[in-house]
Amino acid sequence: MKLKEKKINKQMVSPNIATTYTIVGTGLMGGSIAYALQKYKIATHIIGVENNKKNAAKALELGIVHEILPLKKAIENSSMVILAVPVHTIKSILPTLLNYTTHHTVIDVGSTKTEILHCINNHSNRANFVATHPMWGTEYSGPEAAQKIAFKNKAVVICNANESGKAQLAKTVALYKKLGMHTIYMDAKAHDLHTAYISHISHLTSFALANTVLQKEKENNTIFELASGGFESTVRLAKSNATMWVPIFLENKKNILDVLMELEVQLAEFKKNLIQHNEQQLTALILQANKIKKILP
Amino acid sequence: MKLKEKKINKQMVSPNIATTYTIVGTGLMGGSIAYALQKYKIATHIIGVENNKKNAAKALELGIVHEILPLKKAIENSSMVILAVPVHTIKSILPTLLNYTTHHTVIDVGSTKTEILHCINNHSNRANFVATHPMWGTEYSGPEAAQKIAFKNKAVVICNANESGKAQLAKTVALYKKLGMHTIYMDAKAHDLHTAYISHISHLTSFALANTVLQKEKENNTIFELASGGFESTVRLAKSNATMWVPIFLENKKNILDVLMELEVQLAEFKKNLIQHNEQQLTALILQANKIKKILP
Repeated sequence: MKLKEKKINKQMVSPNIATTYTIVGTGLMGGSIAYALQKYKIATHIIGVENNKKNAAKALELGIVHEILPLKKAIENSSMVILAVPVHTIKSILPTLLNYTTHHTVIDVGSTKTEILHCINNHSNRANFVATHPMWGTEYSGPEAAQKIAFKNKAVVICNANESGKAQLAKTVALYKKLGMHTIYMDAKAHDLHTAYISHISHLTSFALANTVLQKEKENNTIFELASGGFESTVRLAKSNATMWVPIFLENKKNILDVLMELEVQLAEFKKNLIQHNEQQLTALILQANKIKKILP
Repeated sequence: MKLKEKKINKQMVSPNIATTYTIVGTGLMGGSIAYALQKYKIATHIIGVENNKKNAAKALELGIVHEILPLKKAIENSSMVILAVPVHTIKSILPTLLNYTTHHTVIDVGSTKTEILHCINNHSNRANFVATHPMWGTEYSGPEAAQKIAFKNKAVVICNANESGKAQLAKTVALYKKLGMHTIYMDAKAHDLHTAYISHISHLTSFALANTVLQKEKENNTIFELASGGFESTVRLAKSNATMWVPIFLENKKNILDVLMELEVQLAEFKKNLIQHNEQQLTALILQANKIKKILP
């Protein structure tokens, strides 16, 4: 009797499960989503799941999350779970995580989708999961990198939506709408191919460009005094976090290798025409590239 | 007698030659310099030399220049001449232009230096010329692209300064100081090598990346809905003007091919380790690339 009373009291002061959200991974993406959940009054209580003790302390200090709990306990106390950890971690924890779910909506925000969905294809709680990819990010990482103004006017991709439960899908779409994003529906395989083109290859070339220039820096340190906006914009992605990007590269390996092959062809075109001093063809290549203005005005 | 009087009258109302500047090429660079000359009250009168009639009219309309004159006449009426045309045009007009000079200071703002300096190596008026490269620019072109706030806190490279006259050099350094820039002195060959690394290769890869993605777009138009900040920043340079960039690529061909070869090596490293699924080596490559943070904080 005493115990029961205590339990009831605790429930009365504890946060409402319906508006309690769990964020797994309190870095750049998780942290920025947590800020948005608070800003738009979507969640009244946010639980963080964070294995990195330093990041956990920082996330609490910055007010990104209200408490840090172990994964299972966090899920028990919340209605929505947002996975914002590297894609190979999502893949490794998702099947177990879905075992813990009942009424929950679980979403991820990872940059690859095929392998993640493959690993829960026959899971009895598959319907509780919605695969999403908000097309926003920066080259920085960790809770300190989380931004209070993010996502607005960007796209979010939802993959294989028909495999998610109707209620879970509706809740997810409503969430991103409140964040000011517009939803694009896509098959996971198409998503992974397209992101290889418009995101992953940009990161790969940026890393390679940085290494090219750093290779030179060994010989001469002064060249960076000359670096202006153009260099900075092509190389800034090279600051991106290995913990996040190595798994993306490996999970989307096949598509990235395809795009890399096309990039090699395009670079070889420039090289050949440079060697041949072919002004006309170089002009044609640049005029072709200029058509990107139609897409990025 | 009548004629002489008229001449004197005209001289009295005509602009002071000492503070009249000629800008050859009234596009992005020339236009932005002209705005700065006015803003910092360095020039009281600016003459434009512009073969493109549409650009000439636009430059007058925007107040970039006060009048448009033919090259020879413009030089006769000014003390300082700024060449802001594509590098092959600088090379082709510079020897003749120097023939017209007496007391003048002539500077260029081109992105390559070795070939330009080579063509006036033995010119009797070589001292009137100062080879400069302000490290500022955007991917846009034409008079409309000229910016009223530019150059500040950026570097300007002066090449082979010892070949310029003392007065001309001092006037040039003073000019860039008023624009808020700091001067770096460099040998023309070193300049061309360094700019290949920190500017020209960024443009080349950006053009190649744009062509890679546009190649894909033929098959699927929706991928650009996904493009976010990362894509935009690596590809924005692909909007750059062919008229400006083809001459740069050709004049700096040898250095650009060297850097391109190093980039091929770096891309091949990523490719090899991707194929081998070598997580450890991919991490090492990205951690190496992250060192760019020391240079671009």
